Amino acid sequence: MFARLFCWTVATAVMTAPALAEDGYDLWLRHEKVRDGGNLARHAAAVVAPGRSATALAARDELMRGLAGANGAAPALVEKPMNGAIWLATPASAPDLPVKLDGLGEEGYAIRSVTLDGQSVTVIAANGDAGLLYGAYAYLRLAETGASLDRLDIRSAPRMKLRLLNHWDNLDGTVERGYAGQSIWDWWRLPDWKGPRYTDYARANASIGINGTVLNNVNARSDSLTAPYIAKAAALADVFRPYGIKVYLSVKWTAPMELSGLRTADPLDPAVAAWWKAKAAEIYRAIPDFGGFLVKANSEGQPGPQDYKRTHADGANMLAAAVKPHGGIVMWRAFVYAHDNPDDRAKQAYSDFKPLDGQFADNVLVQVKNGAIDFQPREPFHPLFGAMPRTPLMMEFQITKEYLGQSTHLTYLGPLFEETLKSDTFARGKGSTVARVIDGSLEGHKLTGIAGVANIGADRDWSGSIFNQADWYAFGRLAWDPDLSAEAIAREWAAQTFSTDAKVVDPIVAMMMGSREAAVDYMTPLGLSHVMGTGHHYGPAPWISELARPEWNPVYYHKADAQGIGFDRTKTGSNAIAQYAPPVAKMLADPKKTPERDLLWFHHVGWDAKLKSGDTLWNGLIRHYDAGVAYVAAMRRTWDGLRPHVDAERFAQTQAFLGIQHREAKWWRDASIAYFQTLSKRPMPPGTAAPEHDLNWYKSLAFPYAPGNP
Amino acid sequence: MFARLFCWTVATAVMTAPALAEDGYDLWLRHEKVRDGGNLARHAAAVVAPGRSATALAARDELMRGLAGANGAAPALVEKPMNGAIWLATPASAPDLPVKLDGLGEEGYAIRSVTLDGQSVTVIAANGDAGLLYGAYAYLRLAETGASLDRLDIRSAPRMKLRLLNHWDNLDGTVERGYAGQSIWDWWRLPDWKGPRYTDYARANASIGINGTVLNNVNARSDSLTAPYIAKAAALADVFRPYGIKVYLSVKWTAPMELSGLRTADPLDPAVAAWWKAKAAEIYRAIPDFGGFLVKANSEGQPGPQDYKRTHADGANMLAAAVKPHGGIVMWRAFVYAHDNPDDRAKQAYSDFKPLDGQFADNVLVQVKNGAIDFQPREPFHPLFGAMPRTPLMMEFQITKEYLGQSTHLTYLGPLFEETLKSDTFARGKGSTVARVIDGSLEGHKLTGIAGVANIGADRDWSGSIFNQADWYAFGRLAWDPDLSAEAIAREWAAQTFSTDAKVVDPIVAMMMGSREAAVDYMTPLGLSHVMGTGHHYGPAPWISELARPEWNPVYYHKADAQGIGFDRTKTGSNAIAQYAPPVAKMLADPKKTPERDLLWFHHVGWDAKLKSGDTLWNGLIRHYDAGVAYVAAMRRTWDGLRPHVDAERFAQTQAFLGIQHREAKWWRDASIAYFQTLSKRPMPPGTAAPEHDLNWYKSLAFPYAPGNP
Repeated sequence: MFARLFCWTVATAVMTAPALAEDGYDLWLRHEKVRDGGNLARHAAAVVAPGRSATALAARDELMRGLAGANGAAPALVEKPMNGAIWLATPASAPDLPVKLDGLGEEGYAIRSVTLDGQSVTVIAANGDAGLLYGAYAYLRLAETGASLDRLDIRSAPRMKLRLLNHWDNLDGTVERGYAGQSIWDWWRLPDWKGPRYTDYARANASIGINGTVLNNVNARSDSLTAPYIAKAAALADVFRPYGIKVYLSVKWTAPMELSGLRTADPLDPAVAAWWKAKAAEIYRAIPDFGGFLVKANSEGQPGPQDYKRTHADGANMLAAAVKPHGGIVMWRAFVYAHDNPDDRAKQAYSDFKPLDGQFADNVLVQVKNGAIDFQPREPFHPLFGAMPRTPLMMEFQITKEYLGQSTHLTYLGPLFEETLKSDTFARGKGSTVARVIDGSLEGHKLTGIAGVANIGADRDWSGSIFNQADWYAFGRLAWDPDLSAEAIAREWAAQTFSTDAKVVDPIVAMMMGSREAAVDYMTPLGLSHVMGTGHHYGPAPWISELARPEWNPVYYHKADAQGIGFDRTKTGSNAIAQYAPPVAKMLADPKKTPERDLLWFHHVGWDAKLKSGDTLWNGLIRHYDAGVAYVAAMRRTWDGLRPHVDAERFAQTQAFLGIQHREAKWWRDASIAYFQTLSKRPMPPGTAAPEHDLNWYKSLAFPYAPGNP
Repeated sequence: MFARLFCWTVATAVMTAPALAEDGYDLWLRHEKVRDGGNLARHAAAVVAPGRSATALAARDELMRGLAGANGAAPALVEKPMNGAIWLATPASAPDLPVKLDGLGEEGYAIRSVTLDGQSVTVIAANGDAGLLYGAYAYLRLAETGASLDRLDIRSAPRMKLRLLNHWDNLDGTVERGYAGQSIWDWWRLPDWKGPRYTDYARANASIGINGTVLNNVNARSDSLTAPYIAKAAALADVFRPYGIKVYLSVKWTAPMELSGLRTADPLDPAVAAWWKAKAAEIYRAIPDFGGFLVKANSEGQPGPQDYKRTHADGANMLAAAVKPHGGIVMWRAFVYAHDNPDDRAKQAYSDFKPLDGQFADNVLVQVKNGAIDFQPREPFHPLFGAMPRTPLMMEFQITKEYLGQSTHLTYLGPLFEETLKSDTFARGKGSTVARVIDGSLEGHKLTGIAGVANIGADRDWSGSIFNQADWYAFGRLAWDPDLSAEAIAREWAAQTFSTDAKVVDPIVAMMMGSREAAVDYMTPLGLSHVMGTGHHYGPAPWISELARPEWNPVYYHKADAQGIGFDRTKTGSNAIAQYAPPVAKMLADPKKTPERDLLWFHHVGWDAKLKSGDTLWNGLIRHYDAGVAYVAAMRRTWDGLRPHVDAERFAQTQAFLGIQHREAKWWRDASIAYFQTLSKRPMPPGTAAPEHDLNWYKSLAFPYAPGNP
């Protein structure tokens, strides 16, 4: 009575152990076996890696690990270049290197196919070991995105010196504006326990060129400067160092008072300066390559030098003097606005900082958000870019999506970053792009930088969703080279994250590329901004008007009334446009010449004014809302079609999140229309649906447990 | 110039992908290939699993998955019993089942080696599919702990009906007294996104017999009873259902007022009763097998029926009536003490509840903590056990180690659980153990239960450390069978978690078995209790005396003075001993007869009184502190010796945590001695070390970011 065997399809799925599932932990470093195995196998049968520094060993190990996956078998590690070998070489390890390295600096690399004694060898060469590491990752990226490896001749060096993540992570494990779980810093068990995730964090960052990380929230607690927390930061620095990543700290301005009982934090008080000098020395004893300080001062309740009638420059320079002997720098944020300043919030940072140009010490950067308000779905570039030629300006992007759907919306930020970087400030005539301001080429600055507010947390997938990983990736790639296109980056990311198959990459890239514009459409079309719910910033609340400070209220930003909608920032209004260079200001003075995407940012426009489409503004607004919702519906269809090509867990998560995004996009549209209609008194355009609920229903919604809310 | 290949030892380690690392995620369900492959291979070549319910399929899949791992190859799934097959059978699927099932109930199982038509078959049989699931896990446990599988004849049924975890998880993702990261409930993205971790949670619990889970903190928010949160709970219930796990909710007494504007929460008010009836019906529409409510009322600031001059029974019975039509139950916690009650805190629960015996509805259990204070390293059993014969008493253990070293100390709780369960109440004469009170056998209760406050969080290893997993495991196993020994459970756990090799299991079990006593020694020897830091409960602070409520202060508990130390709970003191049955009370009245481990719990003893060892109390106290520290030092040596046998990540984590434990054990000892010596004025005994710092140093320590502090 032996029974007939039968096929057991369920078992296959069940028997994949949980740890083997594609859960997103490996990010873009999955190193799946490549499709054109011959190409890679021919060129990467062996590795020569003579360097013995921790960073050289990391470069070797990352290359070996990546090739083992991509090739399906580990390459041989050999002592000398041979046919089909990859040779990791620096002038120190190979004096007769057949590659020119001038102009590549310490971090750049060259990858070149050469013939040595008749043997085909790929040389990855650099002046320093960090360059080898970046070159190793670059080679893997080429191999894993289907590039031909036959005749490589690539030279690449980072355009920005400082390529940093800013973690808004608190010492209690929460993350301000974090939507991916708790902080990955286990402060409580550091420095004793340094889990493997810290290494994987460093690997992921190094693979995209990030070379620094600010560990703690800009809304800082002074505890992070106490001896126990310095030891914890030092433990992380030790893990990150081989991967070329330096550690920085956000500091609280009044730390000398809180920690040591000083009576003042006046930057010109010698005791205050001495305290910071001693504190810096203490930090550098624990972390010899400590990067420096990031400061949020006199902003949103944080103390700062203005409390003592001193300027931001006075404050920054005092701290800069403390870290200067150790080679450190200070990043001073320009994100300031004051409750007692009745001027347009969008103008205040410029008004405060522009007069200080030329007054900052040479190891200070002023860190400026991409736009003048606060990381909205779309903002025109910040007027400070191009306006402070004697000061290195550092870009601050937000990778975490505080205003773009938080963890669940698929809104690829590459196009947002690209749009800002390519914006032309006209500071020195046409071509004075924001990218050329921050990379120092416009004004000849050597100290340059870019920062991204991290979207990283303890969630298994690091970023709260698989697609949010692309934003981290895109930030790093653009920090290295701000001229890359968001689309090329999306292709790279999708190929490494999912599959090189065009059937997968093409639709995924197509989804991603329009997704941020869709969010603009369903949240804040035509230049609207800051109409989200209070505190948690989740969901629409354009009706809010009663918060204590005027600039906390959505009505301050959209200024909708019976006549029209939008913030007049021309001469007849706040005249914020005068902060831009004359060619830009002239264009923005005229609503007809203002890019329609920024229309309501700069102009109060009548409900019946005509848009380029021929629609009235009212009808056009609604078309935009609808287009945003329709785009999300289309993404859902596209994704559903990818089911056969995507592993089950990542497919299901993305599918669930797209469902949430679709529901919430409709909610944004409906709530916004329900409110604005009470002012415009215009009917819905033909063929469009009225909001599902009445305005009071939308107003009644409350979200006491929304994440990321400090 | 082909280069010579050479061995690359680093590569092997590096090339293990992170996801494959032993990171603790798989808990005791790792299903490593067993050492005696022949034994298992012979008996588990195939599986017969005719059941088609979700639970039957889960039993089949878990068995297949486990055997695939333990055997190194997937068994065949066949239609009928064959030689070497395992047959999952119920009377419904196999009317002629060659196994008797009477007395096993719905959850019990039998495992029997039988011969059918000359073929050797192992039958796993049960009355219901849940029994099959438990039987499948039991078979795997046998196979993976080295049992002979030749002649099995096992019958097992759970002694307790409700075997529950209590999650003290808040809706904002924090966990009160949680030391393993955020809550694993992603409330924000439920019900849309149900990640795979929920299934793995259910699998882990089912594997040790847990059949219910209270999702939210006993310090409850009423939001958990709103429609959105009911839908979220229902989504979890759907995931858990196939694994035999029911969902329960903690409720806030004033929910009818907060959610619906009722003017009162008086349990005898018909509108209040109607509200709860309707709410229960709403929940049961979403979750047809909803378990019921857990209530913390009139305790530590929580509202309750006493606010309306009603009794706990009035409150419990009103809720019980609401869930009764649906088959639900109410668990009413006896953890009460009142700020305006000057009586010994240890007496108050008994005083409140004992008079209510016989007044509770038949679907109410009163949930009693193991001891009368609060989950201390050691407490005598709670005097309510045995004192309420007409009421089902449910045990509440704490698996999370609020008072036993939190996430990092290795303090296996099996012996603590066992000690309580085996304690004799003498309620009906000798042998009236706490286990027999709660399993219903002493008084003939059918409704029985046991709850453990979970130590589970979003940390990759679930419980904050590998060894903390053992406490979860031990709770589940003892909930199934309270007569199991803690040591046998430790052996099972270690074999499944690390290796069946005696070289590994023996030293690990030895470490575990003495570890809780070591924590008692270095924290609260000889019956001391509640001398920890305020709020976070981390570290020693026996000097605290100025908190608003007397019973919040450590000095309330130890009562140390110039004469001696300890809480007189005899007739000359609070007479708490009178709450125990006469034989127990008589023993406890005499310090000479009181178990020395509980001496200072019941007696105020002079510093120079003699202990059984011949030491004075003062010298004996210090010997205990030293023994605790020495035990941790010995564990470190043992663990270091296991390096060759334990994978790198789990080895390193445990090693780091033992280092923390050693440092903190010394801190507990030194701070306690430094304080008590100011009162005892006795010298250190010969050969013992004075505290490392003076008392003020210990008093100066502050831990503003200690985890788990609500």
